[in-house]
Amino acid sequence: MITLHVEGMTCNHCKAAVTNALEELAGVTAVEVHLQEGTVDVQFDEAKVTVEALKEAIEEQGYDVK
Amino acid sequence: MITLHVEGMTCNHCKAAVTNALEELAGVTAVEVHLQEGTVDVQFDEAKVTVEALKEAIEEQGYDVK
Repeated sequence: MITLHVEGMTCNHCKAAVTNALEELAGVTAVEVHLQEGTVDVQFDEAKVTVEALKEAIEEQGYDVK
Repeated sequence: MITLHVEGMTCNHCKAAVTNALEELAGVTAVEVHLQEGTVDVQFDEAKVTVEALKEAIEEQGYDVK
């Protein structure tokens, strides 16, 4: 599991957008967005998906990963 | 045209949610959301839709109309 720090997630729509984008990736098994903290916990299979790919999926939704 | 003051719209997803909800109402001809100002400009036909209905459509999306 990794915790990513993400800027700009403000509401439940943002939460859904980030969650859905990550869950679409093969190898991602669980996603939890914490809006207040600005963090996203991702459980994933390192053999199937890279951290870089997780970050890209978030950034494609318009958010910055710190 | 009426300008409604709406609390809690934070991002472009919010903007889209409010815009779509209003545009679905018969009698609404134009919607413009200003996120920074927290306002929504609505052009509508008073013979077809009430201000109360506009407010309800926004509130159903989870935002407070002041």
